[in-house]
Amino acid sequence: MTQSKSTNITWHEGTVSSDERHKNLNQKGVTLWMTGLSGSGKSTVAVALEQVLLQRGKHAYRLDGDNIRHGLNKNLGFSPEDRAENIRRIGEVSKLFADAGIITIASFISPYASDRDTVRKLHSDATIPYLEIFVDCSLEEAEKRDPKGLYKKARAGEIKGFTGIDAPYEAPQKPELHLRTDQFSIAESVQAILDLLDTHSLLSA
Amino acid sequence: MTQSKSTNITWHEGTVSSDERHKNLNQKGVTLWMTGLSGSGKSTVAVALEQVLLQRGKHAYRLDGDNIRHGLNKNLGFSPEDRAENIRRIGEVSKLFADAGIITIASFISPYASDRDTVRKLHSDATIPYLEIFVDCSLEEAEKRDPKGLYKKARAGEIKGFTGIDAPYEAPQKPELHLRTDQFSIAESVQAILDLLDTHSLLSA
Repeated sequence: MTQSKSTNITWHEGTVSSDERHKNLNQKGVTLWMTGLSGSGKSTVAVALEQVLLQRGKHAYRLDGDNIRHGLNKNLGFSPEDRAENIRRIGEVSKLFADAGIITIASFISPYASDRDTVRKLHSDATIPYLEIFVDCSLEEAEKRDPKGLYKKARAGEIKGFTGIDAPYEAPQKPELHLRTDQFSIAESVQAILDLLDTHSLLSA
Repeated sequence: MTQSKSTNITWHEGTVSSDERHKNLNQKGVTLWMTGLSGSGKSTVAVALEQVLLQRGKHAYRLDGDNIRHGLNKNLGFSPEDRAENIRRIGEVSKLFADAGIITIASFISPYASDRDTVRKLHSDATIPYLEIFVDCSLEEAEKRDPKGLYKKARAGEIKGFTGIDAPYEAPQKPELHLRTDQFSIAESVQAILDLLDTHSLLSA
């Protein structure tokens, strides 16, 4: 311990451990990676989940297109290289948030299995929990919802390379959770994620 | 409020507000940007500060070369463009952490005023608190400390463009806090930062 005569400040050698951080927050950090088609319900479930976690005194934060594409990744376009770099950077930031003890909800279409595998590996290399959640509904249903009118534009040829229309969505083969948002309510989807967090003992220190 | 028959999960329209987040954490998010020469004491003060904040039940996280250069910014070199992009990305990530309600301690030499101004503007545009801390000691003292042996290498010409030797350090003109680590103890520096946070009412909701 080091102590100055003029203050009552003390600290120990070395940096704050994950255990100390988790005890402080009474939870463990994790990245919840929500992948699925546009319109599959990722954002809706993520927004509800974040609120419910906060109600329960947990600390969660959402990363999504709104706070990433106009900020950290505003210098990236939609070329194959830029799409991969987009997901890589989001993966690195998610890892930092999870390392900080936060329940990190990353909600991105992330259509390519190889990009998602990169993010999973970033976390496993650092032994930081990572759970992939496949937010699944039929293309027909997603297109019927079309909350942002993007499918309409893609069908009209106004948007090129749109996932599900003229670009592939590679469905996760072994997600930690498979949510069928065309069969279950939002509340049921949120409950399923809470159960997943509980199963992995992430909601306590 | 929306409620499913099968769960007791409820939530409100819209996303979690900053106020809700701050009440939950009993603090406000902020970026503490620590700038100064290599060896000025940025990391030492940052590590101690993080511990002391956690002891007091606050939620803090450090961003530094260790968790950024090998992760998010591993694809950046040391060209002028890459240096600017390095600081820009760190600024964006700091902003996200501060938005999440975390006391974010970013500790980087960040020698150029224009880069630091970019980061300050990112925060002010989003009305997220940002406090610049100039961690100051004489070049002579920093070079005497030389904790990583980098000044020795720079003097020997083994490292080019080293801040303070053959690259400039543009000292902040109006930092929110000016720490003289060659005149005050680490504990006194930590206390000064706690006082700064208190003055800005950041240690309560």
